[in-house]
Amino acid sequence: MTARVQSVLNEVEYIVGYKTYVDLIKPFLTHQQIVATGMRQEIDRCREAIRLAAEGHRVAVISSGDAGVYGMAGIIIECLEQENLLDMPLEIIPGVTAASAAASMLGAPLMHDFAVVSLSDLLTPWEVIEKRVRLAAEGDFIFALYNPKSNGRPQHIETVREIVLRYRRPDTPVGLVREALRGEESSVEITTLEDFTKHKIDMLTTVIIGNSQTRIVGPYMVTPRGYKL
Amino acid sequence: MTARVQSVLNEVEYIVGYKTYVDLIKPFLTHQQIVATGMRQEIDRCREAIRLAAEGHRVAVISSGDAGVYGMAGIIIECLEQENLLDMPLEIIPGVTAASAAASMLGAPLMHDFAVVSLSDLLTPWEVIEKRVRLAAEGDFIFALYNPKSNGRPQHIETVREIVLRYRRPDTPVGLVREALRGEESSVEITTLEDFTKHKIDMLTTVIIGNSQTRIVGPYMVTPRGYKL
Repeated sequence: MTARVQSVLNEVEYIVGYKTYVDLIKPFLTHQQIVATGMRQEIDRCREAIRLAAEGHRVAVISSGDAGVYGMAGIIIECLEQENLLDMPLEIIPGVTAASAAASMLGAPLMHDFAVVSLSDLLTPWEVIEKRVRLAAEGDFIFALYNPKSNGRPQHIETVREIVLRYRRPDTPVGLVREALRGEESSVEITTLEDFTKHKIDMLTTVIIGNSQTRIVGPYMVTPRGYKL
Repeated sequence: MTARVQSVLNEVEYIVGYKTYVDLIKPFLTHQQIVATGMRQEIDRCREAIRLAAEGHRVAVISSGDAGVYGMAGIIIECLEQENLLDMPLEIIPGVTAASAAASMLGAPLMHDFAVVSLSDLLTPWEVIEKRVRLAAEGDFIFALYNPKSNGRPQHIETVREIVLRYRRPDTPVGLVREALRGEESSVEITTLEDFTKHKIDMLTTVIIGNSQTRIVGPYMVTPRGYKL
């Protein structure tokens, strides 16, 4: 959590968010009223936040990670547009996205160009996702995969593994981070492209697949930037 | 700056970093001794930090943005390896990377899959960079370009524009953010793929090129996630 988020949380009257995320910040709240909604109720959340703000209240809508990376920032703006309220004051506060959080627990896998891809096909056709995986694999991008096991489609991550194996060695390092930076809830594993899908991967996991240069250095996964030491 | 960084800065005896970045955090420092070095002295900085830590001091090495994204995290680990000190305690604290910071000032351009690419060819052959740009353009990835004008090579960004124009409309939104989230130093422009290289772009600029769905919504640049409103 950034210092800016801490100070804004103190200034607002209402906190609007997905229940699980609201629970995570409850220790930091004092006077604020909470509007917590369930999973996939993003649009309802935005409408409620905008209604409260239009009444003159100061409102914070929260996301996990960075609200600007697959988060609530976009849908808030789209809701404001639909309600002809684009002139409403809005501050988007960036955060630490899951790729950064996971990378910090693995070592330094993101020292070179990387592609962030969500494997959730709820809002994106799988063909588009698969094409992106193929092109990023060919380009030797490091991958940060979000939502690696989506909604009853456990085979997607296997398909990703097969595609990337066409371009990279089976022993390419892969990092699996569950609930990155959530204290004792967090777990970290470093494995290989060959084997990573045998490990536990779920919606709370961020998967980082190394590029052709990524290597294991002691307990760390590192993609060299290219400095001559 | 995250709350974790604030508390660690308070705990350490030494701050090691590039002079410009040390200057940015001076307002937050009290008792710490400062070791500031010049540009491109990354390896010297690491060696000095490791020397101080090996003497038993608590040392923080700082990066701008996220130390884990093209930052100091990787080279620290590589220096530890070279000096046979991989068992030295090391905490990598993630931050808000430039892509996230720039996105927050533009609206919500990173609501979909994106590629982070550095155009600096100091440590990476230009052919590799150009290939990545072509593949990410074909994959309809949003781009976050770091170091868009590198070291006396102003034509790189023109080449990127030409490549992406093969795959995307000339009016694709492009956001230019200089010194993201550095208060009055910051500047933001939203322009188009056709025109963006006519604007001021330098090493302190982050360039975000939209995908085929990105659009301008009032004062914002937004890539729709795909929700039905």
